[in-house]
Amino acid sequence: MTNPRFDTLLITGAAGNLGRELRRGLAPLARKLRLLDRVAVSDLQANEEMVACDLADMDAVIAACEGVDMIVHFGGAPVEKPWQEVLDSSIRGSYHIYEGARKHGVSRVVYASSVHAIGFHQMESHIDARSPHRPDTLYGLSKCFVEDLGSLYWDKFGVESVMVRIFSSFPEPADRRHLWSFLTYNDCVRLVSDALTAPRVGHTVVFGMSDNKVKVTDNRLANHLGYRPQESAEPHRARIEATVPVQDPDAPSTRCLGGAYVDFPHPDDEPSK
Amino acid sequence: MTNPRFDTLLITGAAGNLGRELRRGLAPLARKLRLLDRVAVSDLQANEEMVACDLADMDAVIAACEGVDMIVHFGGAPVEKPWQEVLDSSIRGSYHIYEGARKHGVSRVVYASSVHAIGFHQMESHIDARSPHRPDTLYGLSKCFVEDLGSLYWDKFGVESVMVRIFSSFPEPADRRHLWSFLTYNDCVRLVSDALTAPRVGHTVVFGMSDNKVKVTDNRLANHLGYRPQESAEPHRARIEATVPVQDPDAPSTRCLGGAYVDFPHPDDEPSK
Amino acid sequence: MTNPRFDTLLITGAAGNLGRELRRGLAPLARKLRLLDRVAVSDLQANEEMVACDLADMDAVIAACEGVDMIVHFGGAPVEKPWQEVLDSSIRGSYHIYEGARKHGVSRVVYASSVHAIGFHQMESHIDARSPHRPDTLYGLSKCFVEDLGSLYWDKFGVESVMVRIFSSFPEPADRRHLWSFLTYNDCVRLVSDALTAPRVGHTVVFGMSDNKVKVTDNRLANHLGYRPQESAEPHRARIEATVPVQDPDAPSTRCLGGAYVDFPHPDDEPSK
Amino acid sequence: MTNPRFDTLLITGAAGNLGRELRRGLAPLARKLRLLDRVAVSDLQANEEMVACDLADMDAVIAACEGVDMIVHFGGAPVEKPWQEVLDSSIRGSYHIYEGARKHGVSRVVYASSVHAIGFHQMESHIDARSPHRPDTLYGLSKCFVEDLGSLYWDKFGVESVMVRIFSSFPEPADRRHLWSFLTYNDCVRLVSDALTAPRVGHTVVFGMSDNKVKVTDNRLANHLGYRPQESAEPHRARIEATVPVQDPDAPSTRCLGGAYVDFPHPDDEPSK
Amino acid sequence: MTNPRFDTLLITGAAGNLGRELRRGLAPLARKLRLLDRVAVSDLQANEEMVACDLADMDAVIAACEGVDMIVHFGGAPVEKPWQEVLDSSIRGSYHIYEGARKHGVSRVVYASSVHAIGFHQMESHIDARSPHRPDTLYGLSKCFVEDLGSLYWDKFGVESVMVRIFSSFPEPADRRHLWSFLTYNDCVRLVSDALTAPRVGHTVVFGMSDNKVKVTDNRLANHLGYRPQESAEPHRARIEATVPVQDPDAPSTRCLGGAYVDFPHPDDEPSK
Amino acid sequence: MTNPRFDTLLITGAAGNLGRELRRGLAPLARKLRLLDRVAVSDLQANEEMVACDLADMDAVIAACEGVDMIVHFGGAPVEKPWQEVLDSSIRGSYHIYEGARKHGVSRVVYASSVHAIGFHQMESHIDARSPHRPDTLYGLSKCFVEDLGSLYWDKFGVESVMVRIFSSFPEPADRRHLWSFLTYNDCVRLVSDALTAPRVGHTVVFGMSDNKVKVTDNRLANHLGYRPQESAEPHRARIEATVPVQDPDAPSTRCLGGAYVDFPHPDDEPSK
Repeated sequence: MTNPRFDTLLITGAAGNLGRELRRGLAPLARKLRLLDRVAVSDLQANEEMVACDLADMDAVIAACEGVDMIVHFGGAPVEKPWQEVLDSSIRGSYHIYEGARKHGVSRVVYASSVHAIGFHQMESHIDARSPHRPDTLYGLSKCFVEDLGSLYWDKFGVESVMVRIFSSFPEPADRRHLWSFLTYNDCVRLVSDALTAPRVGHTVVFGMSDNKVKVTDNRLANHLGYRPQESAEPHRARIEATVPVQDPDAPSTRCLGGAYVDFPHPDDEPSK
Repeated sequence: MTNPRFDTLLITGAAGNLGRELRRGLAPLARKLRLLDRVAVSDLQANEEMVACDLADMDAVIAACEGVDMIVHFGGAPVEKPWQEVLDSSIRGSYHIYEGARKHGVSRVVYASSVHAIGFHQMESHIDARSPHRPDTLYGLSKCFVEDLGSLYWDKFGVESVMVRIFSSFPEPADRRHLWSFLTYNDCVRLVSDALTAPRVGHTVVFGMSDNKVKVTDNRLANHLGYRPQESAEPHRARIEATVPVQDPDAPSTRCLGGAYVDFPHPDDEPSK
Repeated sequence: MTNPRFDTLLITGAAGNLGRELRRGLAPLARKLRLLDRVAVSDLQANEEMVACDLADMDAVIAACEGVDMIVHFGGAPVEKPWQEVLDSSIRGSYHIYEGARKHGVSRVVYASSVHAIGFHQMESHIDARSPHRPDTLYGLSKCFVEDLGSLYWDKFGVESVMVRIFSSFPEPADRRHLWSFLTYNDCVRLVSDALTAPRVGHTVVFGMSDNKVKVTDNRLANHLGYRPQESAEPHRARIEATVPVQDPDAPSTRCLGGAYVDFPHPDDEPSK
Repeated sequence: MTNPRFDTLLITGAAGNLGRELRRGLAPLARKLRLLDRVAVSDLQANEEMVACDLADMDAVIAACEGVDMIVHFGGAPVEKPWQEVLDSSIRGSYHIYEGARKHGVSRVVYASSVHAIGFHQMESHIDARSPHRPDTLYGLSKCFVEDLGSLYWDKFGVESVMVRIFSSFPEPADRRHLWSFLTYNDCVRLVSDALTAPRVGHTVVFGMSDNKVKVTDNRLANHLGYRPQESAEPHRARIEATVPVQDPDAPSTRCLGGAYVDFPHPDDEPSK
Repeated sequence: MTNPRFDTLLITGAAGNLGRELRRGLAPLARKLRLLDRVAVSDLQANEEMVACDLADMDAVIAACEGVDMIVHFGGAPVEKPWQEVLDSSIRGSYHIYEGARKHGVSRVVYASSVHAIGFHQMESHIDARSPHRPDTLYGLSKCFVEDLGSLYWDKFGVESVMVRIFSSFPEPADRRHLWSFLTYNDCVRLVSDALTAPRVGHTVVFGMSDNKVKVTDNRLANHLGYRPQESAEPHRARIEATVPVQDPDAPSTRCLGGAYVDFPHPDDEPSK
Repeated sequence: MTNPRFDTLLITGAAGNLGRELRRGLAPLARKLRLLDRVAVSDLQANEEMVACDLADMDAVIAACEGVDMIVHFGGAPVEKPWQEVLDSSIRGSYHIYEGARKHGVSRVVYASSVHAIGFHQMESHIDARSPHRPDTLYGLSKCFVEDLGSLYWDKFGVESVMVRIFSSFPEPADRRHLWSFLTYNDCVRLVSDALTAPRVGHTVVFGMSDNKVKVTDNRLANHLGYRPQESAEPHRARIEATVPVQDPDAPSTRCLGGAYVDFPHPDDEPSK
């Protein structure tokens, strides 16, 4: 199509690894990508504009949503952190994003939720999008909060959301769990793109994984997104099986979807972070 | 196989668009196709015989079922119509078909039911074949009636039925809803063929769609039919996205499976039809 | 309360057995009861007015709905009948009632549906209101039709409905099946009264049974009606067990909810009716 | 029993209306009740000790948990409030409570969650404890957060929780919605008492309502608490029906569990609060 | 009723504690009770006849079924035992009972299954009769076997079964688990009586508990038996709470339905038994 | 990978048809295959060692488990047999296998269960792994027993199991039922291999079928095995349809998953076997 689908997309967390992929992959969808992160990206493109601010800065975040069609919200602490940091970047920061969306008429938010929102569910439960939250960390707890925040803003204020529960998205798989949990960068971009263009999403939860051999969740309730993964972790199987020891099948980190996060100590107990 | 599976198949609505496709596609399955419609088809083939009658004519319809192995019942009003017309062609007409099947020992009926029997269900509900009826028009209401009629004739009189809930089956997709609702003519014929030859169907409900990218129903309860769509609306995506405006995601006609039918006024209120 | 809840209630089938009970039981709820039946009742009360007409008479039925708050629709053939009679009294007649409701702004219909709409389900399945229809007769099939008709009129035209699937409501229980299927007249009136006064019903299906010892359906999806049966068939147990032989547990009429109806022949086959 | 079950129970929100009832009702269960609220109660009893502090004061709250067997956490904003207030009292405050529980080995928390955590679900959905959150306000959103917080602290740190979703608990019912949503003070105390003494609760969600006539939720998944309401709103029906107008059945505030909260504007938009 | 419902009932395990209760409680239902146990009862009544044999004696057991209307099969090892004993008394013995039923046209078997057939399910799962087996001992495993044996004999040979999963049935409750697991002798007899007289049971699984305050299973799928417990463990609560320590809520024996059985060592490992 | 995954795998039933396929297919997974069967295989390979013993010989079977990583338990009677034979080979024999696993620390058992454990379920029920057992023969009953045995040994003793419910695995499909029930030898080996190498299986039930056109079960609860069939019965369709008559769709052997087994007489009744 000659004209892109959107005028302006806002991408938060744009300076991160996934942010770089999203900038590349979503460029064809919009005339302009507005990037938001604490630090400016070093390689700003012609179709991009930068907003450097902290998600905890309510006024700046709300202002950044002006004139935006949809938001790809991948910002906030990407791993387990002490409470104050989780609170500021993920809970308060996401509230600011949704307030920006509400005040500026943004129609949809695609959010980087996480497996850690449901990390204590067991592999063989094959949960679906209606299964209750079972966070495994403060990080996961903040993801639960944002999923519920999006629910409120859809039911009450008409802002649609797709909550992408990313399992493991890295340059390449590194351990045996990744053989089932991996989401390649290309599939991640594909999924976000589908979430932006699906005809109606309301408040949709989707498990973000590639087409891996072993499957541990039931994604049928997100079939209206049209997401079909095209890659898998299989090309990395031989390498991983040759180098990474077999897991104890009854260890919590094998049994539970959240992997090692279920064994993490409380982050506020740690001497330094 | 040298001998066709059936001696005689009766096809109602044989003069319509889908009827023409069925005549072509089902020919290899039977020695003879008996065609029933209000008007004779203009191009009767050697393997065909014509019965020109109205479905509302009980005696003629019952007589047309004599010597028939199975019935492909695609006749009756194909769109929303005033009550009297729905009553005569779809409700009364289908009763005549099932009476014909019962009286003449026809073993199975494959019926063109419709998305409009469940048109008020929402896209993200991902209903399956056990979800309750939610008709969106008098047309859809008559489809519900025939589905229940088939249930009675199976439980009580041993006549099997496959209720094919056709979503959108036209020469080609024309709007954005068709990108998920489309059933190509080839897939439609494939599905009817599977429904005729499956080893046991009892009273089966199947959603009739091609292998489109976005999926909005759960068809697993019809897996015993063996239907696997081979086509999709994707080849038409670029054209449609370039020419048809994006839908409001919260409009009833986007939200509900029935599309524009959920907004249709009552047909008896319309000045002329 | 000094003022009755409603100004005018329309009761169809008012000259029947249940009609007589409803006239008595619902009198306190309305200033006026409008009675509709083919023949006038012989004992019209001061708070009542009679409309004698056939349900098949569209104009008369629609006119009878003018000025009505809610409709208690208990008219139509009360047992299995030949197709033409079922079609006229139950299918066409009920369409006229719903058209009357739509045209005259009636807010709610309470309908005498029947166990025979789901008569082929088995006792030990413990179905609930979302289980599919499985009619056991043309009579039951027409009940299915009206349930779906009400669904359409709620989703599209805002007319609420309560579908009361009456199991067995007679002066007193007569056989062993009644020990679980019985709905006393008092409980029937109680249920209709609850259906009329519940704060919101949308399209609700409720199984109409008293508080019998053996229970075969799951009524939790109608708990918003507030119906709690106060009577049961137990006072009649000793009499029935002393006089009625034990049933074969695997006979269809024991196994299926519909009882003897599942064994009825086709009504159009019977020599005279 | 001669010895009370517990040595020390901590009650937060002890100066509120429900707090007063809990002090009275739970007294027999513990040797000592430690009361926490922003202001000291005026009528401190011999079996009570007061901790006056703000829930947002992390150190004070954690210290108040020392030596406590179980916590009855009824503090925090009791109605919809601007974001900052919800964040401080309910989100941050409850985090402090759970940290206090974790650090001081408190075995169980009974929390005053709310219908507003699931306020956008519809009455006729008859949701159960596994249904997803659908908050109707920032207030409800904070309740969702605490429910998930308790989930994390159970799965990871072994602190049990009972999340009591209180519907409407006031001195007496005041409107038609209360006829189904009411939880009498006595039943509330009964439910908290059961939650404290049940043999095992893990992370349990229970709907807090009395034995009202109309029921709109399915509480079977909390049957291991042993809660059986003994009162209802029925004694107030005549008064309410005589004085409060009938609700529009399709208004969101009738349809949705959250009542008027679903129509509340965003609290940060209001000129003064 | 003047004539008893049955001519002859066979009761196995008749010399045990529950056997004594059943002899007393079922006497009014049958002209004659045939008692089977390894040793003769000492107080044989006029309406009783004794068959002293081992359940492992196929010929004797089959012969004992002659002329029997229904069987109340409460024999076999009543607690965990080494494999050989479980195999002989419970697995082989029950096979002999079902063969006796099949060969002599016995219409129904009421079997003393056990909570230990599903002992590893957790309390808060609130399982129902369709949940999978999770035996906690060889004893429980043999109960699973007999439940499946009954399923085969119903589906294939038309012998009905009621599998009564008895939780704890003793003269009186002795520990805190019994406060939710107890089945009084009177309720046990009531349940067996209902199971014998229900109009149709097919293959029914029912949880055998009294009306205790805390409930941990969902018995709705057995509502067609008409069982309503009339007693509970509550009269024993004060005594037990005063004398028995509180359980650790996360101990397997608290968490799991099977109680202490889930901690039992393998019976074949024990030095002497 | 240079080193095989396992040191020693034990294969029971190794002399049978499937045993031969497993020896070939699993060879790359282990340094050594220990084969157990009543008779020695004639073509023992360098990587194999033979244990010739009867499964009913407890001491020999337990001894054969020493030093074994995982067991592929395909031994025992492969078709319907008289009770004593089923008892000895399948029930007692499998108990010996699990005792061997427990005593020698074997981590996982992959068991050849069968469709006949659930043979009386109907085709259109589309059961999943949580559906109750419905055995169709003594053979199927013994499969149910072993599935429950594995459940006990997992929950209590930490021995994992995969219960592979094989539908029809032969050199090639022979009748119309095989068109949906067939499991090719290659897919069978593939499935067993996946079951041995999946990261965690706990107690997993999987339906063993190839990727046939008609599907009659729902295998999603075994997706954590990673099994994806690569073959189907389709290449044999033309031959079978040309030579095998169409089945009566309502015959029990068409309707039920178990096929002809549901019609088998009781094996102990047969004159000679």
